[in-house]
Amino acid sequence: MAGEPKSAEDRLIATYFRPYATHPGALRLTDDAAVLAPPPGHDLVLTVDAVIGGIHFFPEDAADMVAKKALRVNLSDLAAKGAKPLGFLLTLALPKSVAEPWVELFARGLGTDAELYECPLLGGDTTGTGGPIAISITALGSVPTNTMVRRSGAQAGDAVMVTGTIGDAALGLELRDAVTAAKRWRLDNKHQYQLMRRYLLPQPRNALAEAIRLHATAAMDVSDGLAGDLGKLCDASGVSADIEVARVPLSEAAASVVKSEPAAMDKVLTGGDDYEIVCAVPPERLSEFRIAAEAARVPVAEIGRVTAAKAPPRFLGRDGKPMQFKQTSFSHF
Amino acid sequence: MAGEPKSAEDRLIATYFRPYATHPGALRLTDDAAVLAPPPGHDLVLTVDAVIGGIHFFPEDAADMVAKKALRVNLSDLAAKGAKPLGFLLTLALPKSVAEPWVELFARGLGTDAELYECPLLGGDTTGTGGPIAISITALGSVPTNTMVRRSGAQAGDAVMVTGTIGDAALGLELRDAVTAAKRWRLDNKHQYQLMRRYLLPQPRNALAEAIRLHATAAMDVSDGLAGDLGKLCDASGVSADIEVARVPLSEAAASVVKSEPAAMDKVLTGGDDYEIVCAVPPERLSEFRIAAEAARVPVAEIGRVTAAKAPPRFLGRDGKPMQFKQTSFSHF
Repeated sequence: MAGEPKSAEDRLIATYFRPYATHPGALRLTDDAAVLAPPPGHDLVLTVDAVIGGIHFFPEDAADMVAKKALRVNLSDLAAKGAKPLGFLLTLALPKSVAEPWVELFARGLGTDAELYECPLLGGDTTGTGGPIAISITALGSVPTNTMVRRSGAQAGDAVMVTGTIGDAALGLELRDAVTAAKRWRLDNKHQYQLMRRYLLPQPRNALAEAIRLHATAAMDVSDGLAGDLGKLCDASGVSADIEVARVPLSEAAASVVKSEPAAMDKVLTGGDDYEIVCAVPPERLSEFRIAAEAARVPVAEIGRVTAAKAPPRFLGRDGKPMQFKQTSFSHF
Repeated sequence: MAGEPKSAEDRLIATYFRPYATHPGALRLTDDAAVLAPPPGHDLVLTVDAVIGGIHFFPEDAADMVAKKALRVNLSDLAAKGAKPLGFLLTLALPKSVAEPWVELFARGLGTDAELYECPLLGGDTTGTGGPIAISITALGSVPTNTMVRRSGAQAGDAVMVTGTIGDAALGLELRDAVTAAKRWRLDNKHQYQLMRRYLLPQPRNALAEAIRLHATAAMDVSDGLAGDLGKLCDASGVSADIEVARVPLSEAAASVVKSEPAAMDKVLTGGDDYEIVCAVPPERLSEFRIAAEAARVPVAEIGRVTAAKAPPRFLGRDGKPMQFKQTSFSHF
């Protein structure tokens, strides 16, 4: 230290964020830019997602959970593209009302996940704002050259696979938004907690990234609702899909909600915030994909098949008739 | 198009931003991630900066100017690191009050600069916000392996060089903030306009990037005030510097302000938003650096020398005494 007095901004960065900037290219957050050489023979995969107070999280959510969510929604995109995380850049805009313990807890949550997912902090920008807390993260990953899994590429006959369970986060958000929901759905505390937890803290499927890269013809993460997101994948691939709604994997909690209120299935399929992966896998690769998923400890389920029609996917009920959704996908505008 | 109905968000992106996503790796903004292979034998240089309504620009500023500023503050970082732009990712958070013509003009401004600086749009995220317009841009550049110019590396004896003129933007901001400033400074309309314009629209020095990479031992862009930023460069390099204030290049408008109000020199040296470059160049490289700068049509001026002391730089007045600043550098907190 040459004795230059530090601004509050520099001090925050040095105290709370520098410990997590473990990548040599982060230059200990003491420069204007980070420097990084992707592995030879690899492409970079780049994704950016914002997380904003009052829109993507509740103002009362714990700062470490907010940080983890902001990183994980980006990690989820990398996973769906078959990419291995390399690192991330952070923008953090804070209103004056945010006190230092919030920043400390935020940085700790971020650092824990950076280590867990081997995705170190490379650089960032902190600023004030007259509005709510606003976080934007750009995540970088790598794939062997020309192997990034795209939305396009699904072929008629491919199995439509999803990871984990669908709808939990959307139901969890409803539980937080509407005090009557828990009673209406006759949910016990454990199930309420499980659903709300899924909204609070996504579980991105990075363990499955290599299996997706090796076996899927198309993939994306489910962030805006399965119906709408699968629609985007079909659109990009120039295909359609027939989905059997009864095969869409539900948690015990979500199944219990749908039993009490069958109409909640609409929310399950269109609500979003799942951060699961939907992908298309050719029949001849399906058993290898399942073995790889089991090795990665990620549950996967076949929910239908890709079809040749250029049309939105059909979600078929037990009666064989396509469901009609109010809105297939979440939109901010 | 497979007929999936588009959300308002998808439509905005397709209509206004897709035309500027000219890089093949942007996948026409139809995927979850961008894919990019940096040139062989090159490192990636990564920088991120946010621009927020009411903090970095005035709510009444034209949308195309806001877009250009958001991109240019990042381009300025790439220039200072000696990097050639590769592309950028955008986060755009919009309050409900923003109407579509704003978005259209914003995208047009962004696209114009993306073309001008050969820095295409690679991907992004749009979202709503309950706060002011918030923009975050992550810019990517490249340099031949191990040649990124850092803040560290300045050596005692190096010349301290700056590009362009210093202080204009800070004075321009004062003109917008304080109605009395123009009268106090006895500025004519042309000079007022010139100073305010410098605040509104930075002129990043990307034309000088290669000369900096070839000749500078350390560099950074001047965004938070020359005094503080040079202090950071000295700190990172473990050196100090003696700057002759009389040699700091001023525009005609800024010189006129300082003549009316000598105390304004404090603001010139610490106010920020210059987006010029300060760098250290060894004496034996100075003439080559000057020739390269002239070829790039970027004015450069020698303002002092790097010294061996581990201390903040001294800004020496005509009397040879160091100036005392109220605050050397802008901080958001």
